[in-house]
Amino acid sequence: MKITLSQLSFHTGNFSTNTKKMINAINEAKKCGSDLIVFAELATCGYPARDFLQFQDFISLAQKSIIEIAAHCTNIAAIVGSPTVNPVVHGKDLYNSAYFLVDGKVQHIVNKTLLPNYDIFDENRYFEPGTLHHIITYKNYKIALTICEDLWNINDNPMYIKAPMDVLISENPDFIINIAASPYSKTQIETRQNVLKINALKYQLPVFYVNHVGAQTHLIFDGGSCVVDATGNIFDELQYFSEDQKTYQLTVKENLSIDLCDAISTLTGIRNKYADIEIALTLGIKQYFDKLGFKKAVIGLSGGIDSALVVYLATKALGPDNVWAVMMPSQYSSEHSVNDSLLLAARLGIKQNIISIEKTFQTLSDTLQPYFKDTPFGLTEENMQSRSRAVILMALANKFGYILLNTSNKSELAVGYGTLYGDMCGGISVIGDLYKTEIYQLANHINRKEEIIPVNIINKEPSAELRPDQKDSDSLPPYDILDSILFHYIEETKGIQQIIDHGFEPDLVKKILKMVNINEWKRWQAPPVLRVSQKAFGPGRRVPISGKYLS
Amino acid sequence: MKITLSQLSFHTGNFSTNTKKMINAINEAKKCGSDLIVFAELATCGYPARDFLQFQDFISLAQKSIIEIAAHCTNIAAIVGSPTVNPVVHGKDLYNSAYFLVDGKVQHIVNKTLLPNYDIFDENRYFEPGTLHHIITYKNYKIALTICEDLWNINDNPMYIKAPMDVLISENPDFIINIAASPYSKTQIETRQNVLKINALKYQLPVFYVNHVGAQTHLIFDGGSCVVDATGNIFDELQYFSEDQKTYQLTVKENLSIDLCDAISTLTGIRNKYADIEIALTLGIKQYFDKLGFKKAVIGLSGGIDSALVVYLATKALGPDNVWAVMMPSQYSSEHSVNDSLLLAARLGIKQNIISIEKTFQTLSDTLQPYFKDTPFGLTEENMQSRSRAVILMALANKFGYILLNTSNKSELAVGYGTLYGDMCGGISVIGDLYKTEIYQLANHINRKEEIIPVNIINKEPSAELRPDQKDSDSLPPYDILDSILFHYIEETKGIQQIIDHGFEPDLVKKILKMVNINEWKRWQAPPVLRVSQKAFGPGRRVPISGKYLS
Repeated sequence: MKITLSQLSFHTGNFSTNTKKMINAINEAKKCGSDLIVFAELATCGYPARDFLQFQDFISLAQKSIIEIAAHCTNIAAIVGSPTVNPVVHGKDLYNSAYFLVDGKVQHIVNKTLLPNYDIFDENRYFEPGTLHHIITYKNYKIALTICEDLWNINDNPMYIKAPMDVLISENPDFIINIAASPYSKTQIETRQNVLKINALKYQLPVFYVNHVGAQTHLIFDGGSCVVDATGNIFDELQYFSEDQKTYQLTVKENLSIDLCDAISTLTGIRNKYADIEIALTLGIKQYFDKLGFKKAVIGLSGGIDSALVVYLATKALGPDNVWAVMMPSQYSSEHSVNDSLLLAARLGIKQNIISIEKTFQTLSDTLQPYFKDTPFGLTEENMQSRSRAVILMALANKFGYILLNTSNKSELAVGYGTLYGDMCGGISVIGDLYKTEIYQLANHINRKEEIIPVNIINKEPSAELRPDQKDSDSLPPYDILDSILFHYIEETKGIQQIIDHGFEPDLVKKILKMVNINEWKRWQAPPVLRVSQKAFGPGRRVPISGKYLS
Repeated sequence: MKITLSQLSFHTGNFSTNTKKMINAINEAKKCGSDLIVFAELATCGYPARDFLQFQDFISLAQKSIIEIAAHCTNIAAIVGSPTVNPVVHGKDLYNSAYFLVDGKVQHIVNKTLLPNYDIFDENRYFEPGTLHHIITYKNYKIALTICEDLWNINDNPMYIKAPMDVLISENPDFIINIAASPYSKTQIETRQNVLKINALKYQLPVFYVNHVGAQTHLIFDGGSCVVDATGNIFDELQYFSEDQKTYQLTVKENLSIDLCDAISTLTGIRNKYADIEIALTLGIKQYFDKLGFKKAVIGLSGGIDSALVVYLATKALGPDNVWAVMMPSQYSSEHSVNDSLLLAARLGIKQNIISIEKTFQTLSDTLQPYFKDTPFGLTEENMQSRSRAVILMALANKFGYILLNTSNKSELAVGYGTLYGDMCGGISVIGDLYKTEIYQLANHINRKEEIIPVNIINKEPSAELRPDQKDSDSLPPYDILDSILFHYIEETKGIQQIIDHGFEPDLVKKILKMVNINEWKRWQAPPVLRVSQKAFGPGRRVPISGKYLS
């Protein structure tokens, strides 16, 4: 039997495009003589479809897609993820299902049992868990068909009470298929492969795994569809971060053996963390623009490393003709800020302009003088500069149909070291899930062969340049310390004492944690953040604004 | 036996304050000779504590509260909602529990079975559902203790497969206690009372119900704690929208009879929808400020009905000395805008100032002239005005420690008729869950006895005044039609065809639904919206930004 893994990029709610893609993939698979093609979880409607799933209309369109795809399943079977209406009155309205299509019709429906409802996942919001587990017999093979989380209740990760494979194994399946919607994070590739390996080993069965690829606003899907053999070794992987399709031959000799048809193996082995982050963020930008129907980005270039990195990634994603860097110096800007930015823009071959905010800031100051009178220059005046820049950038974006890209990093988003409606503006936050220390690592990775981001930008001391001689270190501890404390708190949800026990100053820990919590109101209004960690700001981290915990 | 219902306002994560409040309430109840005092669901930590529940630290503090409260339970028992650690390795880490405290210690723990995971509720994210159901025997009474949603699986609302009362009833309880965290919406009071009545009738038992009161950022809790007798009649209610505590006497003659001790009945009967909305929004503003430690609000007063209503509600919530109305006319503002605003400010007795944006707008236009050149005046220039106002308002807020209140309404938030980083700014959106047609109703309700909001503001045609002779009706259909279409789509999740079947123009319906969906990116960055409907923008409505459904 030949099995085709089809790793596609779907557009949420865009049923016609998604359906066409799958039908094309089926036709390609037929050319390879494939017997079975496997698509990802909730492939018809895209993932995550979120509350669109609550529209009957939307579910009807998913069902139409299934019928249309099934019509092409002649001489081939297809496994397609799609929502199913729960026929029983009690419980949630839907199941998260895998359709087994063959002979032009729906032959089996398998419902997902383990519904992830943590971090960015909300599946209990929409779906009733499946309770019945049966293998599917097709061409004399017995298939254990599972959906994503169904394989995740493994020994060291006991999130659930059930494990569907423990039931399915009693029917002696020949292999496992898992269709998934497993978003990228910098630790996810390894975690996910371990889950697949543990399952293969535990049940002594090969696993065929198909994931989504592409980006849905804040979530990036890396793909990484693969085949794991019954001894727990990765036999082959599909390409990461791009669409891919491959066919494998199954033969039963003494044991089940797997061969790769008409293609070469693309096993990648150990991956480079920053290379992955770079390509992930590039994909995140690209698909955000594509899916919203935009082509061009405008970015405020401050002379600092954050905006330099964003402008580099935007150029990689959209091409140099589609990126506009705008420098907006004030009386507090250093000369090198503009010069370093000009050098970067020249190296990237992008359009750049210098638009001073001095007059705007002066006019605002004059307008407010009757009220501010003799109050000292302070945070308000700093915010006014940042917001003046945002008004100019948004005007350029609105006038010429660009999207403004946000340049906030995770460290500053965490402690509120940024101006809401100022430098926190933008359609999407590109590097908002990277701590400042990671920003440097990524910049160095980008410069590994040749200097693209001017070293001067990397080496200068971080500064917002909103008052004379300002430095980030005036307000914040050194970034390596800050980022460690933040990581313990945000990613690891450790309490004050646990963090102090790592050897940090108690008062500093208290101060930092308080800053994180009292700035939740700013993050509520922040743009979506491209997620590359296990815990990004946004829908995966839900914290009260008006709470009093540690604040 | 005497039962005290204690309806308190808790502060999320503020364990010391919440614990003190409950101990004071216990002492008050003891003075009345009460045998049992009942507090709300998750009373120790506040509701919703959201991802704070994922911090072990936070859970330990909740457990300390329970021990501290238990120490005061001598000669009285207390029922207190608090999270419990799930002792079993498998499943979620916590239970949502009701502690039964007596003789200084924890006597029973009941775990919530039905976990709401829809709209603004995310309880499956944190809690494992309870599976064991036993009555609690106390002073010869058998108590069926349930937690909020546990009573909600009633005939016409089959969200769940189980109904804990169906098990508990077999042990012949004498009455039902339900502790809840049931937020206000304009239909919720009736819905909730119906649920309690249906349970009382079905099981032929009295129900003692205690809810939260107060506001947690976007969520407003109206209280409405009450006693329902075994025939399904509301015997008594506690006050709405404020803390209250009342004690009831239970006597077993032929049947169980209930009497009210030392207080008068405050049964309210049919409630006035707009009176409730007014008090709910006032409470929402008040507690947002109190909990964040702010006192003063600044509001941009345009001369339109939306900002007039917000400034009125803010004055009611914070007092006239704490509200600052700022008028920011441009060359496109009508004279009556400023005059009507001055009249309103005078009537409310609040501080007002006029700060023209003409120079700021002119400077911005001059700055951008080299880029905009001969492009026509359009949406960009309108947004620039709106954003100039936001920069001024935020500068005033930052300089003097005010919070800017947002004045967007639900109709404009829905179709994106507003400027992100402009009039969409603010710490909290006061009327963002009221359609424009409801805004008029609420204004008329406020003016029912005397004219407070100038009729000229109510009667004028809505306009953003961002270009000469602009009217909302240039861009939008009449608000009664728009709001009906929006209601069918947002509150009722109806599809295009279903809405058209109500008799609306097909092209108009398509246009409106598309506007709603393509403006999701703006709402992602909108302030928290005080929730008064069954479906508010914000955490209760989760929609993809880069989706393609109906757009």
